[in-house]
Amino acid sequence: MYEGPVQDLIDELGKLPGIGPKSAQRIAFHMLTVEPSDIDRLLASLQKVREGVRYCVECGTVADGERCRICQDPRRDRTRICVVEEPKDVPAIERTREFKGLYHVLGGALNPLDGIGPDQLRVRELLQRLGGAAPGPDGGTVEVAEVIIATDPNTEGEATATYLVRMLRDFPGLSVSRLASGLPMGSDLEYADEMTLGRALTGRRVL
Amino acid sequence: MYEGPVQDLIDELGKLPGIGPKSAQRIAFHMLTVEPSDIDRLLASLQKVREGVRYCVECGTVADGERCRICQDPRRDRTRICVVEEPKDVPAIERTREFKGLYHVLGGALNPLDGIGPDQLRVRELLQRLGGAAPGPDGGTVEVAEVIIATDPNTEGEATATYLVRMLRDFPGLSVSRLASGLPMGSDLEYADEMTLGRALTGRRVL
Repeated sequence: MYEGPVQDLIDELGKLPGIGPKSAQRIAFHMLTVEPSDIDRLLASLQKVREGVRYCVECGTVADGERCRICQDPRRDRTRICVVEEPKDVPAIERTREFKGLYHVLGGALNPLDGIGPDQLRVRELLQRLGGAAPGPDGGTVEVAEVIIATDPNTEGEATATYLVRMLRDFPGLSVSRLASGLPMGSDLEYADEMTLGRALTGRRVL
Repeated sequence: MYEGPVQDLIDELGKLPGIGPKSAQRIAFHMLTVEPSDIDRLLASLQKVREGVRYCVECGTVADGERCRICQDPRRDRTRICVVEEPKDVPAIERTREFKGLYHVLGGALNPLDGIGPDQLRVRELLQRLGGAAPGPDGGTVEVAEVIIATDPNTEGEATATYLVRMLRDFPGLSVSRLASGLPMGSDLEYADEMTLGRALTGRRVL
């Protein structure tokens, strides 16, 4: 539709997730009105991500150095590990302020159709962390007491949780739990799907 | 929320129009999964736009060279000029396939509160084009017979249209028209606002 660099930029932006042709056009024309220094900052941040992002050697989330801020923090409870699928799940749980332990990022969920088995996920690393030699804040080692499985409540996430529960059964004294499924807060019972309402019933709490 | 380059990229993406924090995060994590060559193409297209985009010396839309493809096209009717606010309005009218003339991009609409008067728009250039010396396809000159004012049907666009009509009155034999306002096709009369329905009544056509 357009000529030259503007159309190229619209085409490239249109390949990004959640950006349709109209948004791509809007962003491209926005670029013609901003200061060059604004584009420079975007260019620099893209360039840095292109050069490669580091992942925490302990938990596997995105990190600025060898270890992420959470794994470095001496105030975190090192006896609890929350297992999530993706790095973006970590801030979601952090925002609740309910969890003070460490994380373990699997890097996805089991999906045999897409060829994602346990070897494609960071399952071995999780078992190693539970194996004992986890470094404590005082230089010694601490034993993990609880694993909270926080994979997504969908087919793949549930299958991953079931698989992990089976693997973690072998660790004596380890408490393994799963995030509760049920009605989302602020929602309307009338509009809940059968699956969610069923889970809410099964997981009902005695008051 | 995140560390290092990923958070920088999320921050920069979040400044773009129509990109909220969730979309910014989604795009940033998408970047971690794509091929580096995909990021290179986006980087290159941004870099080119940053270096500067060329505008057609005749009509003012974005162009790859001195003149845009439409102004260069010998099959276009050079006696008709459609006046629009922005370069992105040109493809919108092109898609209708109803107009075979040339365009004139004003670069905005009159908006005294934002300090945008006739001198900030390409009004003088429009008057020059109408002044006579418009180059014809055969090297000679053609006289512009019709100007279609296609500014947006909002306060600024209407004010701009009114101003242009007053300026163009001085050109003898020039037909000046404005895009019709009325009910959008496929819409429901019941849900039309009073302004639109009023315009549709005023502009009713005898069948």
